[in-house]
Amino acid sequence: MHDKINIAVDAMGGDNAPKEIIKGCVAALIENADINLLITGDKEKIEAELSAYSYPQDRVQIIPTTEVIETAEPPVNAIKKKKDSSLVVGMKLVKENKADAFVSAGSTGAILAGGQAFVGRIKGIKRAPLAPLIPTAKGVSLLIDCGANVDARPDHLVQFAKIGSIYMENVIGIKNPRVAIVNIGAEEEKGNALTKETYPLLKECDDINFIGNIEARDIPSGGADVIVCEAFTGNVILKLYEGVATTLIGVIKEGLLSTTRSKIGAGLAKPALKETLKKFDASTYGGAPLLGLTGLVVKTHGSATEKEVKTSILQCVTFKKQNINEKILESITKESDQGGA
Amino acid sequence: MHDKINIAVDAMGGDNAPKEIIKGCVAALIENADINLLITGDKEKIEAELSAYSYPQDRVQIIPTTEVIETAEPPVNAIKKKKDSSLVVGMKLVKENKADAFVSAGSTGAILAGGQAFVGRIKGIKRAPLAPLIPTAKGVSLLIDCGANVDARPDHLVQFAKIGSIYMENVIGIKNPRVAIVNIGAEEEKGNALTKETYPLLKECDDINFIGNIEARDIPSGGADVIVCEAFTGNVILKLYEGVATTLIGVIKEGLLSTTRSKIGAGLAKPALKETLKKFDASTYGGAPLLGLTGLVVKTHGSATEKEVKTSILQCVTFKKQNINEKILESITKESDQGGA
Repeated sequence: MHDKINIAVDAMGGDNAPKEIIKGCVAALIENADINLLITGDKEKIEAELSAYSYPQDRVQIIPTTEVIETAEPPVNAIKKKKDSSLVVGMKLVKENKADAFVSAGSTGAILAGGQAFVGRIKGIKRAPLAPLIPTAKGVSLLIDCGANVDARPDHLVQFAKIGSIYMENVIGIKNPRVAIVNIGAEEEKGNALTKETYPLLKECDDINFIGNIEARDIPSGGADVIVCEAFTGNVILKLYEGVATTLIGVIKEGLLSTTRSKIGAGLAKPALKETLKKFDASTYGGAPLLGLTGLVVKTHGSATEKEVKTSILQCVTFKKQNINEKILESITKESDQGGA
Repeated sequence: MHDKINIAVDAMGGDNAPKEIIKGCVAALIENADINLLITGDKEKIEAELSAYSYPQDRVQIIPTTEVIETAEPPVNAIKKKKDSSLVVGMKLVKENKADAFVSAGSTGAILAGGQAFVGRIKGIKRAPLAPLIPTAKGVSLLIDCGANVDARPDHLVQFAKIGSIYMENVIGIKNPRVAIVNIGAEEEKGNALTKETYPLLKECDDINFIGNIEARDIPSGGADVIVCEAFTGNVILKLYEGVATTLIGVIKEGLLSTTRSKIGAGLAKPALKETLKKFDASTYGGAPLLGLTGLVVKTHGSATEKEVKTSILQCVTFKKQNINEKILESITKESDQGGA
């Protein structure tokens, strides 16, 4: 398996496991010849799913596990108890350098807790942020942090800004990404204690393109490429984004189906509408990376299907090829050399 | 002017002043015989606008002012300097008991600062929250607090919950409103330092229907009637709500107009769609009340037109008739009698 990128995949996590996960694995293997997959989970079930496809068998290894962490389980308990789960075993493959990255559609809480506990942080990284991509009118923005550790300090947010900037530039391909901090007004002196302390620190960073505060109103229109915030705020933004979009599309559907005339109109408009709404969907870029770890961990949606699983696997390839972790380490080392935050 | 409800209205605030403000005043006067209006602003302009309508002139008094606070001005400075502005004079009418309430579409910052400085809080109220209504799939929810004072304490949030509950029950007419606190998970032990401390205090309140945590995802579907949060979070929710809705509707419009076929479809669907989207609009309920003050202050949208100005004025009538401030005072007094938060 020399020179190949080894990616561990959790076959048992998510609503569509293992069927869609395996489908996504096969699609990724066919699309990219540089990867080996280490698939963790129920051996028999994985083999049964794989048997439906023809694929390069020499690039697939099944790592049999006997347990599955459910979404509803308290995450810290779950990762402690279920040592032979597809999720824990996958993370340990990264820890032991047997895999460069790990992809899972399983419990977000368990992935966050496991990432810190089993994979471990890059030296100098104070917190590992979860950084999903969110759709905007212009493409996507990185929302960093949406993790489990709330009440962050200003120096955490500065690291998030740097890490996020490296990721957007090198993995998503946005040159000199605009970095902004979520705040309740545009002026520097606005905000809560955290944003007021963080703003001047970000202004001093010469390795990021800091554009100042961003109000939540300007996030969906694509007002910044890297949206820096504390995890509580990030969580609210991420979930509200989803909630408003779902409710609004529901309301619009109801309107379109409310009269005979509108039903006919909806039928005519549907193909074009579907095409445009596709653009407003970040899952085509892959899953949410848990950054700042010694390996990459990617959390895909619990509802992920073949395509998102595939793009999440390919996202790990770009991450590895672009030496993101080396770039993060370099940025953090430079920071401590300067005696910075 | 005995037994009538006196409402001061800022004729100069907002994008559509004074035209739409005066239109809204006239509509309110005609719809409700119990109100007197005290309109603050440029006397000549107000008279010119009023002259276009026939209305009960004995129920209107113009309070001439010479200054206008602009939205872009730093609010605290503005209210200190512009003592003869339509906004400051209107607030002082409430302070001096010449008006029961004040309605303005002007600078939110100046209204928040002025409300605390000129009108003053009800005895026992620690902070005056701004509580806009947001549209949901089920109707509307009250988002409390979206004000300017961030970094709230748990005892502030407990007061917001009580005040919000009284408002939703008596002004909006939702019996036994479900009160929830915004958090990053459903479980009691989830969250940041603030929510973890606040949750048990809310659970102990026997005068509200506390249903626990609400995740931001469940706000748009109408998961709670009173959404309690600290102002930074409230501000993010309010502005993101608007941002996602605007961007998404933009994306959908673009889709509907992208092909000839979809354009025809859009034309057919438009009337029904418009009707349904109207439901997803909280402005039909009036403006955002600044609560906990000795009088009511209502902030309407900067873009408010006749209808929202009218409903905002009528909202003040309900507020007064339902003795909301007496109910708030009672609830707070009870709280301190019990030695509560």
